[in-house]
Amino acid sequence: MRAEIIAVGTEILLGEITNTTTPFVARELADLGIDVYYQSVVGDNTARLEAAIKLADSRSDLIILTGGLGPTKDDLTKQTLAAHLNEKLVVDEPAMAYIEAFFARSQQPMTENNRLQAMLPANSIPLKNPVGMAVGALYQAPAHTYMLLPGPPSELEAMFTDSARPLLIKQFKQANVLDSRVLRFHGIGESALVTQLADLIDQQTNPTIAPYAKTNEVTLRLTAEATDQTTADQLLAELEAKVQARVGQYFYGYGEHNSLEQVVVTLLKKRGLTITAAESLTAGLFQSMLANVSGASDIFNGGFVTYSLAEKANLLQISPEYLHKYGVVSEETAIAMARQAKLLLKSDIGISFTGVAGPDKLEGQPAGTVYIGIAYRDQIPFARKFVFSRTRNFVRQQSALTGFDLLYHLLDADK
Amino acid sequence: MRAEIIAVGTEILLGEITNTTTPFVARELADLGIDVYYQSVVGDNTARLEAAIKLADSRSDLIILTGGLGPTKDDLTKQTLAAHLNEKLVVDEPAMAYIEAFFARSQQPMTENNRLQAMLPANSIPLKNPVGMAVGALYQAPAHTYMLLPGPPSELEAMFTDSARPLLIKQFKQANVLDSRVLRFHGIGESALVTQLADLIDQQTNPTIAPYAKTNEVTLRLTAEATDQTTADQLLAELEAKVQARVGQYFYGYGEHNSLEQVVVTLLKKRGLTITAAESLTAGLFQSMLANVSGASDIFNGGFVTYSLAEKANLLQISPEYLHKYGVVSEETAIAMARQAKLLLKSDIGISFTGVAGPDKLEGQPAGTVYIGIAYRDQIPFARKFVFSRTRNFVRQQSALTGFDLLYHLLDADK
Repeated sequence: MRAEIIAVGTEILLGEITNTTTPFVARELADLGIDVYYQSVVGDNTARLEAAIKLADSRSDLIILTGGLGPTKDDLTKQTLAAHLNEKLVVDEPAMAYIEAFFARSQQPMTENNRLQAMLPANSIPLKNPVGMAVGALYQAPAHTYMLLPGPPSELEAMFTDSARPLLIKQFKQANVLDSRVLRFHGIGESALVTQLADLIDQQTNPTIAPYAKTNEVTLRLTAEATDQTTADQLLAELEAKVQARVGQYFYGYGEHNSLEQVVVTLLKKRGLTITAAESLTAGLFQSMLANVSGASDIFNGGFVTYSLAEKANLLQISPEYLHKYGVVSEETAIAMARQAKLLLKSDIGISFTGVAGPDKLEGQPAGTVYIGIAYRDQIPFARKFVFSRTRNFVRQQSALTGFDLLYHLLDADK
Repeated sequence: MRAEIIAVGTEILLGEITNTTTPFVARELADLGIDVYYQSVVGDNTARLEAAIKLADSRSDLIILTGGLGPTKDDLTKQTLAAHLNEKLVVDEPAMAYIEAFFARSQQPMTENNRLQAMLPANSIPLKNPVGMAVGALYQAPAHTYMLLPGPPSELEAMFTDSARPLLIKQFKQANVLDSRVLRFHGIGESALVTQLADLIDQQTNPTIAPYAKTNEVTLRLTAEATDQTTADQLLAELEAKVQARVGQYFYGYGEHNSLEQVVVTLLKKRGLTITAAESLTAGLFQSMLANVSGASDIFNGGFVTYSLAEKANLLQISPEYLHKYGVVSEETAIAMARQAKLLLKSDIGISFTGVAGPDKLEGQPAGTVYIGIAYRDQIPFARKFVFSRTRNFVRQQSALTGFDLLYHLLDADK
């Protein structure tokens, strides 16, 4: 079983975008025990794509084509594969209904090219696109299996996880049960995590361990193969216990589609606790992440963005003398911000962020210096200092995420 | 002149590391006017690497091999290329001296494999490695040019910039000037933009037009080739005029590294105007994007996140009767929020966001219904209704971006 991944797109060939979908698919295939022997990139050019498919036919069994399913003239992956297979392009009705509904709702004109996104080679199995318009496809030829996936990483990853992976498991893994468990970690980098689990990773056979560095977090996917589900569960449980014994302090939740903010919102809802925030350097990022979790309105009514010293005084009713005395980048100010936000919104929890996003210093403190304050029910409010590095945006994101991390541990400890 | 990049490394094939060196080399070559037609990845396997080189010989003129120059057993790029070229491996004396000095200094034992790092195919031009041990090489065969570069990005980038690029310029650079101009558009999808420019795109020869869909925006890169800079500028200006005549209403700025929020912040700074926001469904996202632009504190002091009806009343001092009468998802409420935020923060501009992020309806209005209000100086405040679709997160992002778009047009009109 030899697999090959062909990424289609002139913008990859020109180096204008970094190809992150091929590594994603490669890891997923490795996880399924499918060996990838070749990866290649071709531009939006029918003749060269056709040549790449022919070459792949000569050396691979499973051929995965990514990209070129968009609505513009230079998107021609589907057409080229259909011609290669001697199949017509046919409409996938659910995809067409989705696209038509999208344009009806948004009151934008729909073009012929948009219709093309709902088409796929005849006799394919459609792969649903949960976050975009282009439908994917799995096509079984006598000697080869072809798969069409969209180029944008969010679309490809969702389609692969939801539709392509189960089909590949069914097709290539029939004898045994294959089961996975995803563990999510925050506050530890990929290399540190991998170092702590080095011997487990080196010895892996069944279950396998696959670490993935995501934005600001790391996940581990444990995958077990067994003759039945009970044995697979047991294998996963045993390996997870070993992992948790070493890096459990960084663990916050399970699942492919999960996040630290989702876990925190769920905990708050379960406990019936409300939260508010006063944000300086993060300027609304924490509250925006909170509100991105569906149902956040049960636990969140609103809060403050207090970017300047004057608005920390005005909106939060903290005396300017206090702010000048301690400085805005200080433990004392972080505590006062959290306490006042909690008080003014009559919430169970107030959280605050103040610090130096950079690139310049503030109050003599270097870029990356951040204080996060928490006022929790009747407990004494506290603040913690962090020093983050890299870009302005990274400092702000790390700050907001670390706020969620502090809340998770606070709620987890106060059961 | 056709170039091909072959990255060597099983860890890339398995998706364990993301290949960032190929895009780097691709961009550099594009910048030199050298067309990259193929990129591929092969594992640390002599037979498959040899096959990849033979394939490249059949279709490319310049063949760049990256990776596999390290000191371990699975590093075999150099050996495979030397065999393919029928050349012996010979020592590069300066590289060997560097390696010997390194081991003498660090008092570590030097192995035979380390010596191998200083070797290259006979008759090559050595490429100095300023940050590592593996020497690179340029080899000129009758019909092909081969280049060996190390895998680690820092080594490859330094070697390319210092040694490889000057050699390639000497050898291949056309007499002509190559210049690009990037135009950025918001509020129009890639397919609609391309449809409006279809004939220009079809006829393109020089300058070329390359559309790219980015997150929530589209860019067009125009690239002209000419004998001198003045002619290139003129070609670009002529094409841009045609483009602007058709889709200029969606244009907001120039440059590869730019964004709508950056353009708006720059305009606000230039005019000496301050801004604040009252955000319901976006819950801080707009303010967070504002603060992500370095120097935003000159024009932004803070604002409100008013997620619930109660906090729209409490924080913004809008009467609950008013909110109940018109509903929170209404033109009237959007206007009141913008006006009150402006008033309470004493800003020149107040902007508000209220609507239904979804997935559920609110006040009988479907998910995606959004009102954006603007109170600008002494002008009569107004609000506009939008209907966005897709996911909760997408609706919120579109809302915030559309807020920037409204501001851009407002400021652009009020010159």
